[in-house]
Amino acid sequence: MTGAVEKIAIVGGTGTLGNGLALRLARAGHAVILGSRDAAKAGAAAAALNRILGGGVIAAGDNRGAAEAASIVVLAVPFAAEKASVEEIRGALDGKILVDATAPLVPPRVNRVQLPPGGSAVAAIQALLGEHVRVVSAFQNVSAEKLGKLDAPVVGDVLVCADDAEARRRVIALADAIGLRGIDAGPICNSAAAEALTSVLIWINRKYKVPGAGIRIAGLTPDS
Amino acid sequence: MTGAVEKIAIVGGTGTLGNGLALRLARAGHAVILGSRDAAKAGAAAAALNRILGGGVIAAGDNRGAAEAASIVVLAVPFAAEKASVEEIRGALDGKILVDATAPLVPPRVNRVQLPPGGSAVAAIQALLGEHVRVVSAFQNVSAEKLGKLDAPVVGDVLVCADDAEARRRVIALADAIGLRGIDAGPICNSAAAEALTSVLIWINRKYKVPGAGIRIAGLTPDS
Repeated sequence: MTGAVEKIAIVGGTGTLGNGLALRLARAGHAVILGSRDAAKAGAAAAALNRILGGGVIAAGDNRGAAEAASIVVLAVPFAAEKASVEEIRGALDGKILVDATAPLVPPRVNRVQLPPGGSAVAAIQALLGEHVRVVSAFQNVSAEKLGKLDAPVVGDVLVCADDAEARRRVIALADAIGLRGIDAGPICNSAAAEALTSVLIWINRKYKVPGAGIRIAGLTPDS
Repeated sequence: MTGAVEKIAIVGGTGTLGNGLALRLARAGHAVILGSRDAAKAGAAAAALNRILGGGVIAAGDNRGAAEAASIVVLAVPFAAEKASVEEIRGALDGKILVDATAPLVPPRVNRVQLPPGGSAVAAIQALLGEHVRVVSAFQNVSAEKLGKLDAPVVGDVLVCADDAEARRRVIALADAIGLRGIDAGPICNSAAAEALTSVLIWINRKYKVPGAGIRIAGLTPDS
């Protein structure tokens, strides 16, 4: 691989998005630790992923243990579990990067934008954790199912928002490493756009009968 | 042209976005009436546009008169003028389609997402006007400058949101007619995504030093 190897925990790693990100990041050469509330469940999920990868590169642990062992912690849990999951790992986050992939979907109408008061779920997590944790918003607009199918391409750009520019750069590099294109989308408050787009993309998937629409930023190169 | 000729008023038509939309829609064969608070100012702006088009096809009037003469009314004013402009034309909107292109930019930090309470400026206008006016959100993510340069292509998709499906279809057809791609993005609450994206695109324009980034929906066709 090009660039630094990152030690990455995936909290909520047994879900579809967590699984897909773990697979792609591990294949790109990063050191991945799959986390779950139940360490045994994480171990079983990691073993299944390692069979797909053809080698035992993904480690496993409970969420707190995974976060402790990593320098970048990816939160890939449903919106309803976001705050409880953050509290579970909070003590292990100081000085680290927390990549929050949460989109504030409110069942049953997940195809309608319903942003929380204040506008952004992830910005609220940054406010909760304070400046000693660099919170980054990313991966809300990528199809989890497509990430999990290693032989299929994923489509779209990844809007990366954070108040810390170096944290943005490191997460943009992660997106680039798994074959997507990370886009510097500005401060953490701008995460509202990515979070709202998730519901729009769910609407579009149903309306246009496609499996996993994404977004691209047009106009960054002369022919785009 | 293919499809029906629409009679379209552009309220706030002397601004950059209004000018660009008027030019493109008129060139596509629609009947365009440029509106301004000052009818004389609208007349001068329409005359300038007609010189570019090489013929006197764009009419002009005050905002209220323009709205009265049209079946589709496009609101292309700054966020700070949105509500006052709606009040100015309110009596002329019954049974019509109001296309609100407002993005809730809050100077001076227009590259930071600052959605209003409730999440969407345009959804608030639908709530204000009631069900007798079909409010459609569109054109927040298209470069006004590029629209105004008829010899240059504009890039990107247009997210079209409305609670009324037929109104969505008619505005999607307008976007298609001017060489963009209209996307059915769902109910009016989903406008929050397009509104938030405007600030993200302004951030991206500055960060990547490009003149007018837009967005595209990826994955609607097998090769996209």
